[in-house]
Amino acid sequence: MRQPHRAVLSFSLAFAIAASSAAVRAQTAVPYDELARGEAVANSQAGKRVAPPKSIGNPADDVSPEMQAIIGAPYPPHFNADPKTPAEWKELIDRRAKLAIANLPAMKAKLGVKVEQTRIAGVHCFIVTPSKMPLENRRRLLIHVHGGGYVFGPGEAALPEAIMMAGFGGFKVISVDYRMPPDFPYPAAMDDAMAVWKEVLKSHERHRLAIFGTSTGGAMTLAMVLRAKDEKLPLPAAIAPGTPWSDIDKIGDSYASNEWIDNQLVTWDGWLGRAAKLYANGTSLRNPYISPIYGDFRGFPPTILTTGTRDLFLSNTVRTHRKLRRAGVIADLNVYEGQSHAQYEANVDAPETREAFTDIAKFFDRYLKQ
Amino acid sequence: MRQPHRAVLSFSLAFAIAASSAAVRAQTAVPYDELARGEAVANSQAGKRVAPPKSIGNPADDVSPEMQAIIGAPYPPHFNADPKTPAEWKELIDRRAKLAIANLPAMKAKLGVKVEQTRIAGVHCFIVTPSKMPLENRRRLLIHVHGGGYVFGPGEAALPEAIMMAGFGGFKVISVDYRMPPDFPYPAAMDDAMAVWKEVLKSHERHRLAIFGTSTGGAMTLAMVLRAKDEKLPLPAAIAPGTPWSDIDKIGDSYASNEWIDNQLVTWDGWLGRAAKLYANGTSLRNPYISPIYGDFRGFPPTILTTGTRDLFLSNTVRTHRKLRRAGVIADLNVYEGQSHAQYEANVDAPETREAFTDIAKFFDRYLKQ
Repeated sequence: MRQPHRAVLSFSLAFAIAASSAAVRAQTAVPYDELARGEAVANSQAGKRVAPPKSIGNPADDVSPEMQAIIGAPYPPHFNADPKTPAEWKELIDRRAKLAIANLPAMKAKLGVKVEQTRIAGVHCFIVTPSKMPLENRRRLLIHVHGGGYVFGPGEAALPEAIMMAGFGGFKVISVDYRMPPDFPYPAAMDDAMAVWKEVLKSHERHRLAIFGTSTGGAMTLAMVLRAKDEKLPLPAAIAPGTPWSDIDKIGDSYASNEWIDNQLVTWDGWLGRAAKLYANGTSLRNPYISPIYGDFRGFPPTILTTGTRDLFLSNTVRTHRKLRRAGVIADLNVYEGQSHAQYEANVDAPETREAFTDIAKFFDRYLKQ
Repeated sequence: MRQPHRAVLSFSLAFAIAASSAAVRAQTAVPYDELARGEAVANSQAGKRVAPPKSIGNPADDVSPEMQAIIGAPYPPHFNADPKTPAEWKELIDRRAKLAIANLPAMKAKLGVKVEQTRIAGVHCFIVTPSKMPLENRRRLLIHVHGGGYVFGPGEAALPEAIMMAGFGGFKVISVDYRMPPDFPYPAAMDDAMAVWKEVLKSHERHRLAIFGTSTGGAMTLAMVLRAKDEKLPLPAAIAPGTPWSDIDKIGDSYASNEWIDNQLVTWDGWLGRAAKLYANGTSLRNPYISPIYGDFRGFPPTILTTGTRDLFLSNTVRTHRKLRRAGVIADLNVYEGQSHAQYEANVDAPETREAFTDIAKFFDRYLKQ
């Protein structure tokens, strides 16, 4: 940020030229044979993998046009945001929240979903109710913990996923508007979510309850079960952590292999890792309530996980899946072709969105008591 | 191959230097900020993803030391082999077969497995029998179609996977030594596999039969079910296509995203794509018996799929998984952290190998009649 402007520009230009020549090379004359020989040399020693620059088009087969547009979109403008003060964080958070909220009325109308505000155990929540609810779902309830790196998605901005789950799945959903940094670091978010969980247990049998969420919400879903186990609370009948941020540190192979390939999160070294540190606020990133991959998964309820082949959290997701299976837990996994992080819920009109939520709804239907 | 030797060397050297400087950059001082800015410029337009050169270490968490060694190994010497004549193909095939066969006695001894040769419907096969077979498996039988790009794995060289399935799973296995190019292109391999299938059906109830195989064997497993459907033959009770070569053409996102990252297959443009064309021998690569992803999966038996996050066939696997689910088929998916193509069976001593075969065995146990 502090380098002379000219140096920055010239690097960017050089980089763009290099990238573009790499693209050209990938598509034209140049010598696949030479590339292959160079790669063989670069990969002749054990312990590391060296890959050349790449230019990759959209996947076309088995991917809808709507999803292709999402997969091929430019990086989001904020991917490398580096807010230095609470005020700068809030400005960014508010700006993104406004964008999310703008889409809500159309989404609610399209899916026939009603949203009300409430407080549960003192925590601000939304009750999200579909106009059509199958008979077998009448006494079931889903608890939603939203994504956003523990910083994004305050208030109504958290609602898109809850609305899609209610609308596509025909479930009543309680979405927890938990407290977040910069004002409230760990463990505020978890404390809020657990307060709601305890309160809901007073009026609902655990066999009719599930918890779900994506990304940070996926990590919180897992951490809530870990904490419920530790606190001897009843566990939900099923959970759906979507592409969970199960290791909040930059640990896991796809943090490297899908870095700069994922066009949603792009890299841990941007806003994401900064948010991780802001949230942890000095607590170890290996604390299982922060990085649930380090927790004990024995006794977990049936779990369905969702990710994509370009997802920066592909490893977060599959490490979680394997660790659950190693612990003897029923664990289902869906991986979508070409999708970056959480893109299965990026556009309510993409067929893959309906598919992902329908698959989760079927899973809940299988494991929740009527 | 026809360029002056000096030019090749100088490119290789330049490439190695570039790769090594990329590695240094990734690890030290250099300007993440500049890299991020360059990437933002390169990814400011829709429709393509541009990624910089990468140097990636071994994944460590949730990966055994044995598997880390496999994941971090250099490229195989033959990854870019380009045999020009049947004789050159045979020389390469024989050379690789000898390596595979050398390991067999120790593997058989370790897993307590016996191998006998036989002919079924005129096709050379191996009967692979574990010394310990659970009571419930006594009347069950698995049909194995081996991998190797339709060229590798003649005779006993095909046996490692069959031995591991028999040993870890406690199943009797028939491994089909189907005919292959360069002498026998498509449809010889499929004709042999189907002849065995038909013959086995005469003495076994379909509910006690499963088919499995990895890579090419995974594609053949899927294609056998497609062909059995078309020929109105009974279908197996379950199948286990491991990282199936379901699209034999270079179609699918991970052919690009994991190119040069996967250290087993490395790239479609090496021996792999050459073998594809040799096998197809002019038949369309979109023929569903060659690329089963283009077939109709309705009515398929329960299917378990296995792959890894670095697998060049990650997309082949997840496209198959999704297409099966879209067709209403029970389909299970395991994705291993950091693994390249088929590495879940690369070392009989890796815990992940036992895990992968045990998971498949449990799946068969669930869906096969006793």
